[in-house]
Order: sequence, then structure tokens, then C-alpha cells
Amino acid sequence: MISDEMTRLVSGSSAIRAMFEEGIRLASIYGAENVYDYSLGNPSVEPPKEVKEAIIKLLDTEDPNFLHGYTPNSGYPDVRKAVAEHTNKKFGTNFTLDNVVMTNGAAAALNIIFKSILNPGDEVITFAPFFTEYRNYVSTYGCNLVVVPANIETFEVNFEEFEKLVTPKTKAVLMNTPNNPSGAVYSEETIKKIAAVMESKQEEFGTDIYLISDEPYRELVYEDIEVPYVSKYYKNTFVAYSFSKSLSLPGERIGYLIANTEMKDFEQMMPALNVANRVAGFVNANSLFQRVIPYCMDCKVDIEVYNRNRIDLYNKLTELGFKCVKPVGAFYMFPQTPIEDDVAFCNAAKEYNLLLVPGSGFGCKGHMRLSYCVSHDTIVNSFPAFEKLAAKFIK
Amino acid sequence: MISDEMTRLVSGSSAIRAMFEEGIRLASIYGAENVYDYSLGNPSVEPPKEVKEAIIKLLDTEDPNFLHGYTPNSGYPDVRKAVAEHTNKKFGTNFTLDNVVMTNGAAAALNIIFKSILNPGDEVITFAPFFTEYRNYVSTYGCNLVVVPANIETFEVNFEEFEKLVTPKTKAVLMNTPNNPSGAVYSEETIKKIAAVMESKQEEFGTDIYLISDEPYRELVYEDIEVPYVSKYYKNTFVAYSFSKSLSLPGERIGYLIANTEMKDFEQMMPALNVANRVAGFVNANSLFQRVIPYCMDCKVDIEVYNRNRIDLYNKLTELGFKCVKPVGAFYMFPQTPIEDDVAFCNAAKEYNLLLVPGSGFGCKGHMRLSYCVSHDTIVNSFPAFEKLAAKFIK
Repeated sequence: MISDEMTRLVSGSSAIRAMFEEGIRLASIYGAENVYDYSLGNPSVEPPKEVKEAIIKLLDTEDPNFLHGYTPNSGYPDVRKAVAEHTNKKFGTNFTLDNVVMTNGAAAALNIIFKSILNPGDEVITFAPFFTEYRNYVSTYGCNLVVVPANIETFEVNFEEFEKLVTPKTKAVLMNTPNNPSGAVYSEETIKKIAAVMESKQEEFGTDIYLISDEPYRELVYEDIEVPYVSKYYKNTFVAYSFSKSLSLPGERIGYLIANTEMKDFEQMMPALNVANRVAGFVNANSLFQRVIPYCMDCKVDIEVYNRNRIDLYNKLTELGFKCVKPVGAFYMFPQTPIEDDVAFCNAAKEYNLLLVPGSGFGCKGHMRLSYCVSHDTIVNSFPAFEKLAAKFIK
Repeated sequence: MISDEMTRLVSGSSAIRAMFEEGIRLASIYGAENVYDYSLGNPSVEPPKEVKEAIIKLLDTEDPNFLHGYTPNSGYPDVRKAVAEHTNKKFGTNFTLDNVVMTNGAAAALNIIFKSILNPGDEVITFAPFFTEYRNYVSTYGCNLVVVPANIETFEVNFEEFEKLVTPKTKAVLMNTPNNPSGAVYSEETIKKIAAVMESKQEEFGTDIYLISDEPYRELVYEDIEVPYVSKYYKNTFVAYSFSKSLSLPGERIGYLIANTEMKDFEQMMPALNVANRVAGFVNANSLFQRVIPYCMDCKVDIEVYNRNRIDLYNKLTELGFKCVKPVGAFYMFPQTPIEDDVAFCNAAKEYNLLLVPGSGFGCKGHMRLSYCVSHDTIVNSFPAFEKLAAKFIK
């Protein structure tokens, strides 16, 4: 009596979540301090103190029926205005509240964008390695995710393959930089080239193709890397943003989307997104956290904590002989597995209480994802386990 | 470039929301105190003080990374346990945390239930008058909503029609008591008869049919009316609950679903609902309000405020000659319009700054919905406008 889609999804359910549950099981046997859980992107750095301060201020000063009441489906107008103005100040854009929809995180933003643009049979292109859930989101609307194979030397875009895969059925290209799982950050040149390919294909096919930039990790970058603002390079662009990582609030499901005024059918798009937010069951992004956002947009978590983990873990792994493109963004690294079968390798790692996620789920076999948003103790204490793994698998 | 579904939905978009926006427009011209907005179910009674107290206590005592972090997709286990135990105590049921999924309100609960059970072409039956959104939710999964015509004398169930409409394609029956928009509360006898019809049809067709009870208004009843607990009368039952109305928190999107252990395929159902919550983009019900719930489950808003509105408005309308089934639950009443064309009548009411929603949108022409969750001043001050309307339309 379970729907066919859910039967399929449950049986192939998230390797990330499965590993997370395995971590809880192992911790109950060996003690949490003896399990090295690199499986889940649950931020380990505290939210900025301004979050708590804003909540208390709002509770003390706002009418509770307003604070906890239904908001317009797109969000409170003053909050949308604050998001637009903050974005304009930071990136030199020209958005108003009419470009912004407040959403239950980036996952909701992607879903309502897809609901608003996809007809069954349309194709959405993304670049491997990619966040596992993309395939499930797209299939909800009866569409296929078309995957551009990874460029495993750099985790930048494989342009030769990308150009071949754009067809008249391509309705959108979905990109994610800083990237989960590789930690790569696309350069301005890469973004310009993506835009150029899309523009030339639009002209060739007489179609419009939307670019959807999934940016939950935008604030998490290291080594003074710049993250170019994608909307500026291509007219038909949506940005999906989340405060889950920048403010360490992943459980609160708060984010937004911004659609370019210059995009095809912008006038019809905003009402469509508004109604999609309602009809998909979100109704509105939760009202208290919408009102928290204007107080915290200039804040971010202390990323030096992640940076230290990144450097120490990367140095240790490469010293042991693991091959890894050095990550410069997000809080993931994506080394090659020493044996081709990444699932077998991650199972072997479990023997040492090391929880790693196989790359296959991200469209990139022979790799493994490590979420290094853990305590520094976990990093250091896991080194002996990695040493044993390396001794066994790396010649 | 907008999807066909959203093009259709936007053009036929919610009459309720349209009226809400019209209210804002009229208020800007005539002043809010001169506009009588009966269009939206946005609670006017303050949340219980325990909500604020719980939030502050949680902020002061819990680890912020836990409080604002990802939860399991089904929700925090201790919160699910608290919901199960509270339900058992109140209704003599036998639920555990394994029967409960925390959701972003009842809208999310309904969506993930539908995602978990519906294949394209399945039918879902509901009883007119019904909440407008049901049709949209069901159509997301490629299914039809089959509507049992209203019994306009009582707004109880029209059993003759119901029996005819159950077919081998019926996957679920969706009921809503206390009812939006009629304010009716189904009696125990009605619920037993619904269960009996469904059981006999299951046997006749050799199928399983789920009963989905949408209960956001369960705590809002007057005149010492009892609301029977639907799960006890039929094995294949889901309850979708929301704290939006009982705690006046509609913007926070917090609720849950409970599935009966005895239902068909229960063992597969809970993993399916868990994954559906994730894949539909909700991920988890927002974490702070999940943790607020155990502190507030025994609280409810002061419904005497709604009760006074109910009595005064009902008395005035019937005195003026409007025909109306007396509502005993929720905060809506659903009188007949004096002329057959309910849309024309509601447009005429706008001339007097009265915002009413046509019954057609609820599958019941010749009626109008009034949300009386407004201030008592609004009720009293609107009387002259109703008098003028009555003078014009009621002989």
C-alpha cells in the first residue's frame, strides 16, 4: 500500500542518514568519544550570540499574534526587503522584496523552484559530485536528473561533457558552489563559461534554460577565496540560500530564494513560487526565524574552527597517502578511496569506528565524503584509525 | 516557462488569499477599523504564556547546536514520545514514539502521507464543504479528489452519496472535523458509520483504504461538544494534527501525524513517511518549536473569546434572516448566501467593506465562509454593514 515512488526511495534510502544512524549504534557500544563520525553535515560551531538575542528581543517586543502568525506565503515583506538590501550591499545587485521568497531552507527553495518550472519529462542537468537529494527532488516532478561526470582532478566543471548533455529538453542547470561533497569553489571563469554554454544553447535550441545556484555554503570559504555571485553572470538565474550553515541553524529550516528580474517570465514566476510554497505544504517559512534573520544577516559562525579541522585532516590524510583535491569551501572533503569499490572501503572503515560516506551516492565512485564539522578532538583522535586503514589499503 | 500545473494553480489561485490581500488594500483606503475582514483563519487570541516561557527556558538551558540542529527526519525521539504519551493519556490509546512523525504543521503531514501512499490515478474522497487546498495536495501526486456533495441541512456526512463514490480506485478518505469551513463536528455515530462503510467497501473490493483525519481544530469546540478520537474507530487511520490553532502558532508550522500500528503496511509506512518528510523538502519540523511542544501540550488558547464572537455573530446573522447551520467547532461559520451566486454576493459585500469568502471554493456553492477569529469590535462594528446587505438581498 506504499506508493511506488516511496518504496523505491526507502529501499535506496540515504547512505548519509544510514551512516548517521550507524554512528548512534556504534557510540552506544564503544562510547561517543571512540566513534569518529564524519557522516553528517550537522554544524559543530555554535550559532552567533545574536540569534538568541534576536529571539528574546522579538518575544519581548512584538505582538505574539504577529510574531507567530501566518505570513504572506512569500514571507514578511520587511524581511524580504532586508534580504534584498543586504544582497545589494554585498554584491552590488539591484534586488527588491519582489525578487525574494522566504523559504524553509534551501531544500524548500529548490522544491518550489522545480514545482514552478518543471513539466514531466523535462531535464535538469547537474555536475558530479552532487548532493544526493537532487535526484529525488527532480523525480518528484516526473523529471530526470542528467549528470555531467566529475572532473576528478579539480572538481571544476567538465565542459566537454556539459556541452554534449544540454538538449532542447534541458529546463534547468543546477549548480552548487561551494560544493557538497567536494569542497570545491567554482572560479569566476568557470561561472562565466557555464553561462556562455547556456546562452549559446538557448540560442541554438530557441529555448530558455534556468540556472539554479544552490548556495547553503556560500559563507564557508577559506584561504581568502572569493565566491562570485552567480546572478550577475546569467539572466535566467535563481539563487537558493540557507542560513543552516552560516548561522548553524540547520534544524530551523530557514532560507530564501532570489529570482533575477531579467529572467524569462519573471512576472508570472513570482506568483507561481508564492503559490508553490503554499501548495507544496510549506505555507510560509516559519515566522519567528523569518523575523530573526534581519538581525543576523551580517553575522556568521566562527569558521576558523572548521578551517583548523580542514587543514589538520587534509594534511594527515595526504601524509598517509590518500589522494585528495584540497577543499577550499564548505566543510567537506572528498578524497579518493584507495580501492575502487568505495562502498566496500567505507564498510571497512567502520571496523575502525570511522564513519565515512561512499562517493557513489554523490555520483562519483571511488571517493568518500568526510564532513569535518566535528570537534577538533574527533579529528585528532581519529588519526590512529586512519593510520590503520592506510596501512591496510595503501601500498 | 512556468510549469503547466503552476500556471493552472496561479490562475485559479486561492480565493481566501485574494480576499486577504483585498482586505489590506481596503484598509489602506478606509482605515483598518472600517474594514470587516472575515477572510483568513489567522488566530486572534494570544498564544498561551507557556510558549514564550518554554522558548526562553530552552534558549537558556539547551546546547544551541542541539536545539537548532538537524533532528531525525521524523523528529526528536523524546518529543515524539511526549506526543504519544499525551495522546494516550487523553484518549486511552496505545501509541509509542514509533507511531509519531513531527511535521511542519498539518499541511506537511497531509503532503507526506499522500506522498507515501498515492500512485498516479488513485482516488482520494473527501466531504464537501472541504478546505480548498485538499484538491491541490492530491493533484501533486497525479490523483483526483472525489467530492461527496454536502448535506447542507446539517453538514454531517451524506452517506448515500459517499457509499456510491467509494470504488476500487479509492486509496484514502480525507475527513476534517471540527470542519473548515462549516464549523460542524462529526458525532461518534457519524464516525462509526464512515468506518463501517469503509470496512464494507474494503471487503467488497479486496482493497485497503486509509482514513486520514485532518484535525487542526480539535481543541476548538463549544457547548461541551466531544470530539471523538478517530483512530479508535478504524484500523487504517492517520491523524494529521497542528498546533496552529490550539496554541495560536500558525506561522511556526508545527504539528505531527500519528499512524495506527494496526494499519496495513505499518512497518513500511513509518520509514516511508520519514523519507517523504526529507525528500519533499521539509527535512524535519523546525527544531526549536519541536522542543517547545512538550511544555505546552496541556495548554490551549482562551477559546471563550472565539465563543463570544460565534454567539454574537450567529445571533445577528440569523436575526437578519441569513440561513446558517449553527457552528459548534473551529472558528468559522458557513451561512447560505441570500442569492444563489455566492461569488456575486461576496463581491457585493465588499462594497460595504465586508470580506467574505465564496463557498464555491470549498465545494459548496450558495454559501459563504466567515472566519470569526477577529476582534469582538470587528464583529460588533460590522453589524451595520450586514444590516445594509440584508436590506438589499433578503426580502
